[in-house]
Amino acid sequence: MAEKINAEEIFKEFKEHSISEFFRKNSQMLGYSGKVRSLTTIIHEYVTNSLDACEEAGILPEITVAINEIGENKYSISVRDNGPGIPSKHVGKVFATVLAGTKFHRYIQQRGQQGIGASGCTLFSKITTGKPITIRASTGKESYECNVDLDIKSNKPLVTNLKTIELNGIGTEVFGEFGELKYESSEHGVYEYLKRTALSNPHTTIKLLEPDGKETVFIRAVNEMPKKPKAVKPHPLGIDTNDLLEFAHRSSEKKLSMFLIETFSRMTQGKIAELKAVEPGIDFDVEPTKLQWNESEKLVKAFKQIKWMIPELDALSTIGDKQIEIAMKNILNPKFISVVERKPKVFRGGIPFVVEAGIAYGGDSGKAVNQIDKNGNVIEAEGNVLRFANKVPLLFDGSNCAITEAINGIQWKRYGIGNFDEEPVSIFVNVSSVYIPYSGVGKQAIAKEDDIIEEIRLAVMDCGRILQRYISGIKNMQLQETRYKTIMRYISQLSNDLA
Amino acid sequence: MAEKINAEEIFKEFKEHSISEFFRKNSQMLGYSGKVRSLTTIIHEYVTNSLDACEEAGILPEITVAINEIGENKYSISVRDNGPGIPSKHVGKVFATVLAGTKFHRYIQQRGQQGIGASGCTLFSKITTGKPITIRASTGKESYECNVDLDIKSNKPLVTNLKTIELNGIGTEVFGEFGELKYESSEHGVYEYLKRTALSNPHTTIKLLEPDGKETVFIRAVNEMPKKPKAVKPHPLGIDTNDLLEFAHRSSEKKLSMFLIETFSRMTQGKIAELKAVEPGIDFDVEPTKLQWNESEKLVKAFKQIKWMIPELDALSTIGDKQIEIAMKNILNPKFISVVERKPKVFRGGIPFVVEAGIAYGGDSGKAVNQIDKNGNVIEAEGNVLRFANKVPLLFDGSNCAITEAINGIQWKRYGIGNFDEEPVSIFVNVSSVYIPYSGVGKQAIAKEDDIIEEIRLAVMDCGRILQRYISGIKNMQLQETRYKTIMRYISQLSNDLA
Repeated sequence: MAEKINAEEIFKEFKEHSISEFFRKNSQMLGYSGKVRSLTTIIHEYVTNSLDACEEAGILPEITVAINEIGENKYSISVRDNGPGIPSKHVGKVFATVLAGTKFHRYIQQRGQQGIGASGCTLFSKITTGKPITIRASTGKESYECNVDLDIKSNKPLVTNLKTIELNGIGTEVFGEFGELKYESSEHGVYEYLKRTALSNPHTTIKLLEPDGKETVFIRAVNEMPKKPKAVKPHPLGIDTNDLLEFAHRSSEKKLSMFLIETFSRMTQGKIAELKAVEPGIDFDVEPTKLQWNESEKLVKAFKQIKWMIPELDALSTIGDKQIEIAMKNILNPKFISVVERKPKVFRGGIPFVVEAGIAYGGDSGKAVNQIDKNGNVIEAEGNVLRFANKVPLLFDGSNCAITEAINGIQWKRYGIGNFDEEPVSIFVNVSSVYIPYSGVGKQAIAKEDDIIEEIRLAVMDCGRILQRYISGIKNMQLQETRYKTIMRYISQLSNDLA
Repeated sequence: MAEKINAEEIFKEFKEHSISEFFRKNSQMLGYSGKVRSLTTIIHEYVTNSLDACEEAGILPEITVAINEIGENKYSISVRDNGPGIPSKHVGKVFATVLAGTKFHRYIQQRGQQGIGASGCTLFSKITTGKPITIRASTGKESYECNVDLDIKSNKPLVTNLKTIELNGIGTEVFGEFGELKYESSEHGVYEYLKRTALSNPHTTIKLLEPDGKETVFIRAVNEMPKKPKAVKPHPLGIDTNDLLEFAHRSSEKKLSMFLIETFSRMTQGKIAELKAVEPGIDFDVEPTKLQWNESEKLVKAFKQIKWMIPELDALSTIGDKQIEIAMKNILNPKFISVVERKPKVFRGGIPFVVEAGIAYGGDSGKAVNQIDKNGNVIEAEGNVLRFANKVPLLFDGSNCAITEAINGIQWKRYGIGNFDEEPVSIFVNVSSVYIPYSGVGKQAIAKEDDIIEEIRLAVMDCGRILQRYISGIKNMQLQETRYKTIMRYISQLSNDLA
């Protein structure tokens, strides 16, 4: 029998960890797994923040990404935008406190939401090069430069060398040095990520300076800001017991009924009366701060028993079918294109979402392969799927994604495409929602919710039907051409014979 | 152009979140996705803690799990052990502070490590039923009962109703009520989880009381504690720049050389001399607290340039080939069994791990299916893979797991198994390491590290070769039997004819 140890001894070492320490040990949860993906993750986090900030401030974004190789698997990265800037008193927390942000508690569609992205980059810089990051920013009221470091033990920022500087116009530039990275021109790399970002954000100009000196500019295709998403009230069908209880306990209303009407979308006196009818056990005159768990649970059940108007859809910000078409023409230069924006739908009963889809055929569509198949034919390109959630490209975890699942289920032959893997075709799908159910914190795949899969399928099939007419048109033309050639051969033979 | 908003307005709402709030919104990251899996997750967390506590205290574990249905998708769960108990002053943090634990900073092989499991359960109880959990514990010095609640905003515990009670012997019992669960007898359910736990922990007695009243006891197969893992020093090849820097800055040694010798396994004066030779730029007499990032980086590089003895392997705690064999016989009742314990190996250059594998054939091995195939033959069972990491069963995410990958690559025909999906065969694989590289925080799959995959393959193939002899033995016997029957038929025919 082994030596026995009692509880007091075991608990001598009891300690608490900070969230920064947790993510330091679990950085793969933030997308830092593999050198190529880690680099794309950093670019994604910074560019996403820039796009969100510009959108919130009503500014057409101009973003410059510069990447330089500075050592073995080491790169310096700079991302500069023309956004609203960051007040210097907040800059430390923005870049060096994990789980701090401006976007919590708001029921609004935005790219970033959890206050992890930018701080995660600072953490990754620290654990791979030991360096702080450098920020240059101007808000119009102040222009400054500073270094920001992250104290992992306390999850607190250390801002140093803060000084006023001159900057041209407002905006933010973040500069950092990172290790354990690899720049690669693959479909998981930065070039592809920014190309897709330009596709889904046609109001944005993005400039990329690659480590080999190559410079690419994706110029904005439209000069209009996208429709701004609004913060809306939650819908009664999209709430759970615990959230309802928390809202109620924070409320300053005197009566439960007034609290419900003030808090929820589609809630009226008439609906309160309906709720009373299905759940007579609840006193709607009670103070909301006194609501008990089991009452909250009964209310949530009652919500599900009556009919509601669908949620307000102002919170959804789509790209727009015209914008997608212009952007796809601009970047893929296809021979044919069809784009569909579906009407908003809801999943889980109360969470609204919209699917936009497009199919581009020919030109630079698809993924270039230039292989020769077993019959000796040249395959120039294979079909590819461009996945987006709230306009953000998803490059990884495709097999876990509702978009992939929906598209895999489509019978392409019906739409005139014999083999998806051998055709120059790009399928574009963007899912917009206040609440995208990601399958992981890396946010690279949309969870396979049946309602979402079905809606994507319908959207892509809508595009497919239009494509089918185009392809059968080509085939008719080819058929006519063959007939013409055959006749011409006869005629030429005939004229020879006659001669 | 949309209305413009400046930075000050945007940052008015700047807030910080607690780690509890984060996991409340991302509970799927802790394994709370789907009703069946959520229930298994809760049992897993509590049972794992019980096993670790018993192991640390040197006690042969007796664990009782009782599950009762108390409403629609609602269950009460009780897990009781005979472990060392928890001192009442720590009970709040153990069960209601996410990221608090006794096991950080220790280089030792244990099941739980991150201080998330038990607090995650309390969080899940709170958000699905609003109830606190109840603890009854005795450490030998005190016996008490109390309720523990988790304040999500602050990630702090609320301990209420603490009172002294009488308990028989030492141990801990946790009782909670949970919603959004489903009890199911599938291969992802609690019964299967505990059966596999009994397989990989043959020194443990586990009793399960199911919601339908069924009672199962998996009685311990061996009466010896497993070899206790030791905390060992890290190996120079298993350290990164940032960790080395952190260790150095915490050191009280006067000289870098002494710090290195004291901190790392296999580090000697001779090795310091070798390091000096490959990296003359480093002053080994400097105070470790003054070590700079780039010096730490050079050191880590230098570590990789010289030869080291492999890491100390005392930190590894295996099940043991004899124990696995006894456990598999006890539970699967097979006709044939072969078990292999491989020698420790390292991955990523410096992290030791051991693979144990077993194959059971016939009896209750495999997964019962009882289907009829297209040729009309009855298939009674299909092959299944029992995956374990540090003796903990892995039931989910099989496709992302090194064990699945290794086994998929095996040509079963070589080992006399025609079709893995149609044979009564169970493959048991346990990977033990101080640092298991899980592919996600749900800890249900081992990352596909080449060194680990290869070692699993070799272990299973070792077992396969022994199995092959057995199966060809059966075939020979069947062949002989056929011959015997044929001869007997002739003889019987002959005797009839003669008659």
